This record gives sequence, structure tokens and C-alpha cells, in this order.
Amino acid sequence: MKPLHTLTATEAAARIAAGELQSERLVRACLDRIASREPEIRAWAHLDVDGVLRAAREADKQRQSKARPLGALHGIPIAVKDIIATAGLRTECNSEVFRDTLTHMDAAVVTLLRAAGAIIMGKTETVELAAWGGRVAPTANPHDLARTPGGSSSGSAAVVADFMVPLALGTQTGGSIIRPASFCGVVGFKPTFGTLSTEGVKHYAPTLDTVGWYARSVADVALLARVLEVSDQQIPKSLPLRGLCIGAWRTPYWAASSPETRDALAEAKRRLCDAGAIVAEVEFGEDFLALDELTRIVMRGQGRISFLHLDRTAPDKISATIRKGMERMSSDQLCAALDRAAALRPAFDTVARRFDAVMVPSAPGEAPIGLASTGSWIFNGLWTLLHVPCVNLPGLTGPHGLPVGIQLVAPRYADAHLLTVAQTVSDVLQSSGLQ
Amino acid sequence: MKPLHTLTATEAAARIAAGELQSERLVRACLDRIASREPEIRAWAHLDVDGVLRAAREADKQRQSKARPLGALHGIPIAVKDIIATAGLRTECNSEVFRDTLTHMDAAVVTLLRAAGAIIMGKTETVELAAWGGRVAPTANPHDLARTPGGSSSGSAAVVADFMVPLALGTQTGGSIIRPASFCGVVGFKPTFGTLSTEGVKHYAPTLDTVGWYARSVADVALLARVLEVSDQQIPKSLPLRGLCIGAWRTPYWAASSPETRDALAEAKRRLCDAGAIVAEVEFGEDFLALDELTRIVMRGQGRISFLHLDRTAPDKISATIRKGMERMSSDQLCAALDRAAALRPAFDTVARRFDAVMVPSAPGEAPIGLASTGSWIFNGLWTLLHVPCVNLPGLTGPHGLPVGIQLVAPRYADAHLLTVAQTVSDVLQSSGLQ
Repeated sequence: MKPLHTLTATEAAARIAAGELQSERLVRACLDRIASREPEIRAWAHLDVDGVLRAAREADKQRQSKARPLGALHGIPIAVKDIIATAGLRTECNSEVFRDTLTHMDAAVVTLLRAAGAIIMGKTETVELAAWGGRVAPTANPHDLARTPGGSSSGSAAVVADFMVPLALGTQTGGSIIRPASFCGVVGFKPTFGTLSTEGVKHYAPTLDTVGWYARSVADVALLARVLEVSDQQIPKSLPLRGLCIGAWRTPYWAASSPETRDALAEAKRRLCDAGAIVAEVEFGEDFLALDELTRIVMRGQGRISFLHLDRTAPDKISATIRKGMERMSSDQLCAALDRAAALRPAFDTVARRFDAVMVPSAPGEAPIGLASTGSWIFNGLWTLLHVPCVNLPGLTGPHGLPVGIQLVAPRYADAHLLTVAQTVSDVLQSSGLQ
Repeated sequence: MKPLHTLTATEAAARIAAGELQSERLVRACLDRIASREPEIRAWAHLDVDGVLRAAREADKQRQSKARPLGALHGIPIAVKDIIATAGLRTECNSEVFRDTLTHMDAAVVTLLRAAGAIIMGKTETVELAAWGGRVAPTANPHDLARTPGGSSSGSAAVVADFMVPLALGTQTGGSIIRPASFCGVVGFKPTFGTLSTEGVKHYAPTLDTVGWYARSVADVALLARVLEVSDQQIPKSLPLRGLCIGAWRTPYWAASSPETRDALAEAKRRLCDAGAIVAEVEFGEDFLALDELTRIVMRGQGRISFLHLDRTAPDKISATIRKGMERMSSDQLCAALDRAAALRPAFDTVARRFDAVMVPSAPGEAPIGLASTGSWIFNGLWTLLHVPCVNLPGLTGPHGLPVGIQLVAPRYADAHLLTVAQTVSDVLQSSGLQ
């Protein structure tokens, strides 16, 4: 029998609903795992042990009373990135500005999670203000403690990868969901921009800021997508592989990819083709070459606006690199970048709609050595700017035996179909021996 | 000598800085005005008399100590719409969901105001959740208590119009800044979308939600624009009228304008031409006909997402009309509207850039009778969707002697030039006898 802390949310929710498992037992198993691993992983910013046990016991009582139908996440522990507000728990954003700051109201997404019965397990470490150039999280990669878990949702990816909780919320403004998912070997999902409220989530670049999450299975990612009502369409569980048509795009940044990433994509392609899917190499026009540069302009231009009030009141409490990035750019430059991005969104969708999904690198390669840098987000920013849904799928590994993710993207609002395709592709990636 | 509560912020700030006026005296004068008028106007949701007097005395002490250079709003009272978070003051959004909700952190804009020395006077009444169909504010129009002040920033427009404070923050998602400004006869300003952080401001439609403000002079509006760093350009105080080129556009909704609005625009045109300006009738292409419809789609589609967590947890505490507006629309419809709006923004800017400003109606006419409806926002939603800066200028009146505003709009990020033009045009509107 699987140890309780290794259950997926889908498995645990089914057992809780059937009366075969108490939330308190599940939560205790997760807390035990945390107690043994946290000294090395350092993924938690705040953990209220008494509070979560109380919440778990309350969930168990509710289940027994049968007063109300159970939510889809009844009694399931979930971690929350420490830039997302939680009532009665600190939200410090790994920033001296918010040291010891207690938040009193849940962010909108946290309210939805609690309404579905979830137990908010605690807050996970983040890069300072989840911003470019911010102080990194102390978190180590569970697969190799000498390596970064990626950022900025460092703690959220690590706690899921390390079996401390089955689910964790993160956010992506550049590459903050998908890159850590790739480095930590978990499923990561960034839904279509704007399908979820960001109320209660620290602002950075509001045209890019997107809430997403981590799990150890696509089914769990889809479960959360249903709870949060990301899509107006049903998410079917699977799809036949035969006839599935995947576009493979090297993106304009192929030169940044390491051999392990190229090998992983080639391996994924081989397995998909062997299983009867069609994988077509696809090219996008020259307009798309500018995507990364445009993302950086929007991030810098809007970041300055989002952090202006902090800079006016507590400049000495913000990392120098973040402050340096706050130099005012001309509004013409920002406006032109916003307009070009807006025009590229439907252009990408039109091409991408010909495929069930577009397969691209998740990251340049395995997680780099050292915690001082969270790695490159060159394969992520463009998708954040295009507002499209992205999934990282684990299963393949690089020369050091570390995870190398595959990213699937789809047109805006095709979240439901993308998750179905991801389930199908994931089965193929997990099915046979790793590289 | 002018009674203190009638001073503009610019006048009061100069006198405070010169040591001729104490903030406490100014604040007391405003409190006296409020005490005498509030029973009829009902514009304040929360007013912490002791707190503001304490803050004013603190400001006076700071000025005397000369320890730090004074901020541009040192000791100036400013009102804040009750959907904008303020530390230690309730933020109830005129919603049963947030009854007695104390907020513990200032919204980003409020932080910037306090950093500039402003005294947060209190919170002003709003339409429920600042949303379409929400419960209206109890606030009366200071010019005629039987009439609406407009909404959703009802209280903010009324407190400035009624000389209770010189400045007030509001927000606009549809027409919530400009319409109340027109009905109450004050200067209202909605800056270019995205030039200010909305962190700590209740979400409704994040593609539209914009913080703006009210004052009794364009100079005061410009003062706040400088403090909040809306523009990367200087805001000169005035411009010669001769050679100024104003485009006059009837908009696609001219049929909704009453004779008083048409007369006011004609009168403005006549005065501008007499003073040497050029006023050119301008037409925009057929693409622009859909603007109002697109605004309503974005508002409804995004409103559902912003309020989903409230609907899941407290459906009985949300007005039925708001809930009815939350019916899920197809994501294709929302996506198409977002893309069409994004394409129209640069298209509008290109035409508008030929003029110093484009002159359009602010509202269909004088404030309607009754408080049950806040009037029509048919002349406002399009500008919110286009993300352009808008100013309402008072000075002209309708058949009942009530204010009829003139709206000036400009391309995105032309906020500084628009405010300079507004100053120039305002002088002409205020210069001679009202109609």
C-alpha cells in the first residue's frame, strides 16, 4: 500500500469521500514527511501545524455529519506560494518590506480552494516579490540539494516534488510555474491569462501575472482546474493517441537549449509517433522573434508601476537588482510592446489551433548547480506574454538523472483540451524506461 | 478670504508649506462642513474623526520639525472610494459580503498618497462592489438632493462637489469616474489604463478597472497626477489657446445625448473658436461602432471571474442583478472582444494623435431625478475599453441649472498633454456666464 503522503489528490479525495481515509491522517502523514525533509529542502515560509490539524479535524467532522455535500478537495492539503494572501497566515513575499506581515483575507483563489474543502497547509518560499532579480528562495531541488528548484515558485514546486503535499499554488509572470516544474520533475500548469482572479496576489506585471499550480499527475492538475472553473468546457480524461496531432516548435530560442532538452524532445516525439500520433515540425513567422524581448519590456515597465509605492516608502528593503530594473522606460516603448503582444496573441492562436497542442522546451536543460540563480526562463516568458495555457510534463531525464520537462502549449482558452492532451502525452512519457 | 474648506488642494498645500495654515485647521474646517452637510448628502461610508485629527496634528508637527522635506500633499485631506483598501479603516464596498471588514494594508495608491503627506479623510460611498447592477449608494447629488450623483464613485464625486474635501479617489470600470464628475460638476480624471497599480483595489473587470480622481480644479487633478507619477512627461501649466486643435466626435451614441449635452458641446466649441482654437468635427470608422458592446462583454465576462469566489461562498449577500450578470459566456466571445478591443486601441490613438484632445459628451445630460439609478454610462465605457485618459470639465449647465460636463480624451499615455489642454479649455468654460 502506498504511503499516505505519496497519494495524489485524486486518490486521496476518493478515499476521503468513501470514508476510507481521514483528512487528519493524511495531513499528519504530510506533516511527518515535512518534518523529516524540510531541514534540507527549506521550502516552507510558514507552516501552522496546529492550524492545519484543526482544519483537518473539522473536515473530518463535516464529512461524518453529512450536512453538506463534500467539495472536490475535501480534506486535501494544498500549499500556497507566499505572494498569495491567506487569512490569518503571514504573507511575506520573501521581502523585508513584508517581514511578519499578517494577511487577514484570503486571495480569491484561496477562497475557492477552501470552499471546495481544501486544507491550506502553509506558505511556500518564493523569489523576493516573485520578481526578476529578487533575492532567491532558500529552497533546494529535491532531486539534488546542490541545485536550484527554479523560481520564483521555488517552494511550491519543491513541496510537490518531495511528496510533502499533493498540490501547490504558484504564479508565473516570466517562467515561474513551468521552469520549476521542469527542474523538479512535476506537472506544472499555467492556465490562460485572465481565467482566474488575481485578487490578493502580489502584483508584478499585471498583463503577465497568472496563478497556476503543481501536482504529481495531470489528473490532479485537471481536478484543480475544475474546482477553479478555469474553462467553460468539460475536461475529458483521455483521448486516443492515434490521430493526435502535435506541432513541434523549436521557438526562436533553440540555441539556448542544451543537448538534454533536445534529446528529451526527440524522445517524446519518437514515443508519440510510435504510439500513432502525428508530430509535425512547425515554424512561426518572423514577428514571433521579438516575443522574449517584448516580455521583458512589459515586465520591466509594469514592474516599476507595481513596486513604485514600495520604492517610495521602503527603498532600503528592496534588493538592489529589483530597484535597478525599476528605471522608468518611455511610455511609447511600453505601449508599443503591449500592442505588439496583443496582435501576436490571435496570430499564434490561429496557427496553434491546427494542432492538438504545440510541444516546446520547458527549460534549457536540467536544473543548474547552485541556489544563487533560478536558471533561465527563455522558454517561458513568450507563453506568458501570449496568455496561452502551458503544461510541463515530467518523465524524461538528463545526463545527471535529473528531470527534463516537456512543455505543451495551446491557444488561449483551450485549457480543457490541453489538459486532456497532456494526460494522453503524459502516459507515453511515463510509460517506459527513462533515458 | 475664502473659507478654508473651499480651498483647492494646490492653494491649501502652498499655505501649509509656507507655514500660513495648519493641517489641523484645514481638516477641522472640512469636518465642520461634513458635519453640517452629511445628513443630507450621505457620501461617507466611514469617517474616523479622531484618526484624521491625529494624523493632521502629526503632519503639523512634522512640518515644524523640518526633519524631512514636505510631500506635495502635506497635510491635505483626501477621500477614498470604499472599494480601495485603507489600513485600519473598514473597506465594505457597499456589500453585505464585506460588512464590517477591516482592511489592514493600504492599497498601493493610498501608500503613495500617505508618502506624499496626504491625510486619508475617510471612505466614500460606492455602488455595491462598484459593479453594474449593484445596490446604489445612498448619496445625493449636492446640486439637487433629489437627483443621483452618478456612480459608482458616487460619494467621491459628491464630497468634492460639496466642498467637504478638495480631492477624492474613485475608480472607473464603465463610467464610474467621468459620469459622476459630470453630474456633480467637478473635474474628474481617469488616467491611461495601467499607469497606476490597482493592488488593494477590489477587482471587477481587470482589463478595465482604473483608479482615477476628483478635484475642483484641473491644477489639483494635475497635482495628484504628479504625485502618483502617472506620466513620464512634465505637465506644463498652460498652453496658448490660439492654434490648439480639438477634434469633436459625436461618438456612435449621439442619439443618446439630450439637448443640454448637445448645447453644452456647441457652446464649448463656440467659446474655443472665439478664443482662437480650431475645433474640427472628426469621424472614426465603422469598427468603432462596436465599442460599447465590447465593453459590456468584457465587463460581464471578467466580472464573473472576479466575483466567482464571492458567489461560491456568500451568494445570498450579492444583489440579484449582479448575480444575474454572472452567467458564464463562451470564452470565444470574451476572447474575440478582448482582441477586437486590443486592435482598436492603436487605431484610435493614430487618429486622436492629430489633435490636442478629442472632445466628446461626458454623459447624456444633467443628472437624472431619483437615486435608484446612477444614469447611463454610454459615453464612458468606450474610453475605459480603449484605455485612454479622459477628463471631465465642469462649467456649463443644463435647463435645470445643473452641471453638464464636457469630456476630453487623448491617446494612451498622453496624460500630461491632456491635462495641460484641459487646463486651457477649462479656463474658457469657466470664464463667462453659464448658459
